[in-house]
Amino acid sequence: MALSSDKRIRILNAAVTVFADRGFFQSRVSDVADAAGVAGGTIYLYFKSKDDLLISLFEDRMDGIIRHVNDALSSVDSASTRLQIFVDKHLTMVEQHPELAEVLIVELRQSAKFMREYTPVKFAEYLDIIEQIVRDGISVGEFRPGLSPRLAKRIIFGALEEVSATWLRFRRDGVVSPFELEQAGTQIWEMLSAGFFQIDHRAQERSTQ
Amino acid sequence: MALSSDKRIRILNAAVTVFADRGFFQSRVSDVADAAGVAGGTIYLYFKSKDDLLISLFEDRMDGIIRHVNDALSSVDSASTRLQIFVDKHLTMVEQHPELAEVLIVELRQSAKFMREYTPVKFAEYLDIIEQIVRDGISVGEFRPGLSPRLAKRIIFGALEEVSATWLRFRRDGVVSPFELEQAGTQIWEMLSAGFFQIDHRAQERSTQ
Repeated sequence: MALSSDKRIRILNAAVTVFADRGFFQSRVSDVADAAGVAGGTIYLYFKSKDDLLISLFEDRMDGIIRHVNDALSSVDSASTRLQIFVDKHLTMVEQHPELAEVLIVELRQSAKFMREYTPVKFAEYLDIIEQIVRDGISVGEFRPGLSPRLAKRIIFGALEEVSATWLRFRRDGVVSPFELEQAGTQIWEMLSAGFFQIDHRAQERSTQ
Repeated sequence: MALSSDKRIRILNAAVTVFADRGFFQSRVSDVADAAGVAGGTIYLYFKSKDDLLISLFEDRMDGIIRHVNDALSSVDSASTRLQIFVDKHLTMVEQHPELAEVLIVELRQSAKFMREYTPVKFAEYLDIIEQIVRDGISVGEFRPGLSPRLAKRIIFGALEEVSATWLRFRRDGVVSPFELEQAGTQIWEMLSAGFFQIDHRAQERSTQ
């Protein structure tokens, strides 16, 4: 029996909805089959297990996300503008695809298999986009030379992930979030570009050092 | 049979080690009993279930952490110094108690029960320390008035959590981390205090706005 890529896509799309709705652990492969409109056993022709389905979903979607972000960055020279675009794209994707974000940000964390045994190469590739921007920004003199690109990517990603996870939690609970993701993006960007201090205060701190 | 608080403490201490070592899902209540040197059924005199044990552990340890951080902050007026102390204390606790950090940062995320049904009040209380510092810093003019204290706490906590989780992952894999937590703290603090830009570049950005 030939496997159809159309059916594979339908299964992956259904998995996003089911995992986001019920949670990965609570979902059964048969729930995904029902949502995809295929017979229960059909999923096993494409994916070895529920864990394999989650990992395949992750790799498939991360591929698309990485392409989408790289496309947006490709024609931009300035490292600071590229960083600003990255922050904006990340949060816009969460806002426009909250179910997918729920799976990638919340459910994946809860998959013990994913955390312990699987090396999420695509995830490292996504984070490396930030690291490269910071590296470039330092080398052309836009960013401070004391910045660690390796730590900067963790700091920026951690901030993006925590505001996204919080926003998604409000959404899941059916509560209006006390902040918009666009506002969160502005706050993150202003922190990266200017820090927290008042200009006067900062100048004063410097002069007394 | 009277319950001893000493035995309860022994069980909680053993749970940290067992959950950090095997992972929460893979751990059995009997593993915790063995590690604590009590009979298997004894744990159920103190905790209703494995989930309840995790939640009790979380609340007990968060109480201690909140007290420890508040003690360190109590005699300090400057909001920026208090923020710096918070960042430092958080990362120092991770470094000195990596097993506990593993449970609080990594394992708790994987407990579906915890994520979905339990409201982690102590966690909100911990984060509110950051929010209050930022609020105070704005009101006395140390921090920019445009900062959102509510978002600032998410941004700072997200950054702290991501660098901690990364450092713990290296430790778990038996690999030397490519960065020290102290260095991560310095990077986070410098980002908060000065942002990413070169001073000259920042002045230039401002003058062209």
